[in-house]
Amino acid sequence: MVKTPPFLEEPDGTRGAIMTATYHALCEHGYANLTIQRIADQFDKSKSLLYHHYDSKDDILLDFLEFMLDEFEEHVPRDGTDTIDSHLDDVLDELVAGAVPVERHEFMKAMVELRAQAVHDDRYRDHFARHDRFFQSQLADDIRTGIEEGVFRDVDPHQAAALLLTTITGSITQRATTETDISAAVREEIEAYVNIRLKSSGSTDE
Amino acid sequence: MVKTPPFLEEPDGTRGAIMTATYHALCEHGYANLTIQRIADQFDKSKSLLYHHYDSKDDILLDFLEFMLDEFEEHVPRDGTDTIDSHLDDVLDELVAGAVPVERHEFMKAMVELRAQAVHDDRYRDHFARHDRFFQSQLADDIRTGIEEGVFRDVDPHQAAALLLTTITGSITQRATTETDISAAVREEIEAYVNIRLKSSGSTDE
Repeated sequence: MVKTPPFLEEPDGTRGAIMTATYHALCEHGYANLTIQRIADQFDKSKSLLYHHYDSKDDILLDFLEFMLDEFEEHVPRDGTDTIDSHLDDVLDELVAGAVPVERHEFMKAMVELRAQAVHDDRYRDHFARHDRFFQSQLADDIRTGIEEGVFRDVDPHQAAALLLTTITGSITQRATTETDISAAVREEIEAYVNIRLKSSGSTDE
Repeated sequence: MVKTPPFLEEPDGTRGAIMTATYHALCEHGYANLTIQRIADQFDKSKSLLYHHYDSKDDILLDFLEFMLDEFEEHVPRDGTDTIDSHLDDVLDELVAGAVPVERHEFMKAMVELRAQAVHDDRYRDHFARHDRFFQSQLADDIRTGIEEGVFRDVDPHQAAALLLTTITGSITQRATTETDISAAVREEIEAYVNIRLKSSGSTDE
């Protein structure tokens, strides 16, 4: 059983319990090998309750994705005491650099499988469009704050956020699908980008 | 029937014909909805020949991925008359910017589905590790050439290539899995990165 992530710390009622079971089943089996039965195996309450609420594993997973994003939107993980550039460093450390716990790595791998369902399933497509819009605007807000505080140059926040989001998506995808881990090099180079493109004290000399 | 891409222009013998049929079937059906029968439907020769050579759709697809990468490795698509920075621009235009023909977009979507198989299938994992190593070293070679020619600064070619590859992977993944197309913004921002980080004539002023 893996550690419960922050968005599942206080699950409410039946839905919360189903979401927690889904998280653990996804970490253990991934998407391809997941079945409703395997989610039910992680579920403490009556199994029939699970079958009563959902028709398929995709129904549960789509509800899970929505639940997770709702939680993120409600509790934006920005620590108010951080400076904006160290906050951005933390985000990139967590999402681009490879040093994540095993459970989290398994979860990120399952997320890459879920995103690929969007190629042929409009419900997943709608979710990941919302997901990407949310995280791009979060990053743009951070950059905008940095500009207002004089820490960052006057770049286009939305455009710079697009590159950061794409680097995060690419890094997560590559880590989940290859053994060769280039994420440390990617982290170094995006740091160089942040320093010379975003930071107002940055220079093109290293 | 979609246009044949360069790597399939002169397919040799039975394998070449199977590879061409696989390409067209992938563009038409994607991975999730692909069957051996649907590949056979695109195949002019005897269907039994196809079943004789391969046991499953994944066997065919893994052979297809290997065939495609072999062709790329043999005929590196670098036009010798280009300058190195305009060559890099072309690569980023093609792989990051969104203006691709419909058939090619369908093919890239299928590639995102194939890459996601690497999460649970080691054979796909081995392929995409080889795929990423090849394209990262191609990009690093380009950057190294630029440094030697004095067009690019003396950056770490392998590290800069890691960021470019990750941006390409992220952009392809996002375009295949959401309707919201942020690839034009990503293309603009990676251009800013190339200008101020790589180009020796670049400056931090836009």
